[in-house]
Amino acid sequence: MGLLPPPVERLAEEFARFPGIGSKTAQRLAFHAVRMAPAHGRALSAAMTDVVDQVATCPNCFFLSIRGELCAICGPPGRDQSLLCVVEDPTDVLAIERSGEYRGLYHVLGAALSPLDGVGPGEIHADELLLRVQRGGVSEVILATDSDIEGEATSSYLHRRLEATGVRVTRLAHGLPVGGELAYADERTVARAFSGRQQL
Amino acid sequence: MGLLPPPVERLAEEFARFPGIGSKTAQRLAFHAVRMAPAHGRALSAAMTDVVDQVATCPNCFFLSIRGELCAICGPPGRDQSLLCVVEDPTDVLAIERSGEYRGLYHVLGAALSPLDGVGPGEIHADELLLRVQRGGVSEVILATDSDIEGEATSSYLHRRLEATGVRVTRLAHGLPVGGELAYADERTVARAFSGRQQL
Repeated sequence: MGLLPPPVERLAEEFARFPGIGSKTAQRLAFHAVRMAPAHGRALSAAMTDVVDQVATCPNCFFLSIRGELCAICGPPGRDQSLLCVVEDPTDVLAIERSGEYRGLYHVLGAALSPLDGVGPGEIHADELLLRVQRGGVSEVILATDSDIEGEATSSYLHRRLEATGVRVTRLAHGLPVGGELAYADERTVARAFSGRQQL
Repeated sequence: MGLLPPPVERLAEEFARFPGIGSKTAQRLAFHAVRMAPAHGRALSAAMTDVVDQVATCPNCFFLSIRGELCAICGPPGRDQSLLCVVEDPTDVLAIERSGEYRGLYHVLGAALSPLDGVGPGEIHADELLLRVQRGGVSEVILATDSDIEGEATSSYLHRRLEATGVRVTRLAHGLPVGGELAYADERTVARAFSGRQQL
């Protein structure tokens, strides 16, 4: 349309790239940026640059970490190195940590299998999971993918591949709401799901 | 929690300052920023800085403009300088321009009167509207605030103040869906509302 100052147009375009933000919402966010305190606008700008420059996924578990460093879970000592909890997203790690029920390590897939969306085994760090188990020292792999169709399919796929290693493989109990997403579950539901986990 | 890299925490905090973005959504946006192409992250960062540094409201009508310049509607010649359309937000200007029905100027209030939210007459550029009319050359003021309670109250308030000037004051016809927001109306509804506007 050419009615808006170019920086506002560009900011709206960039906001619209985020999942769940449509073009109208993106425009409203960009308009709000004009009215917000300049210090907050600059802080967002700097934080975004810092994320791009400094943040990556943990080379061990694929949770978020400072680039080239182990994450806050893999790095410090004190976690039970023999337990691996496999989740889809970093938000799932936060949900499980809030429950206080688990003291092992994680493996973040980054996605669930979804052939229609082009997410195959090569996109979910499955090979890296097998390697971690084959390297030894792991006594149990807890599959904590979501309980929707993609999450169940991912769990089945990983279970099949892990069987050959002889490691104990469990799945979180269905204290979790069926069909929902792990990251939105409350702490007690997550804790119940951990204590009731069942061998596959 | 201290589990996330600090730049991710900071980015989520800044996203959460935007209206309509809760802390969970803000965190998901920040996580997405880690996975997006670095070029897009840098583009968002740069656009945000440019908005803070270069964008302000038009000194004439309070639509968005490059700082210190008239906006894309007030600046170029060709608009009917005798018509003033009063709207709440910049998005309303865009909705009206999409209808193609209007060729006059605007006056963007920035908000509707809402005493409970602390928005009084001093917050909606009402004095500036009166000054523009008193300066002369305006034959009609079209009140195009939303048709919800705040928008109607704002329209009544401005009508009362404008009566003393003798200028013709009209209100957009109720082709607009009652109780809804102008920015979400389709082009034809906005056009009908313009052609059916009625003198107050």
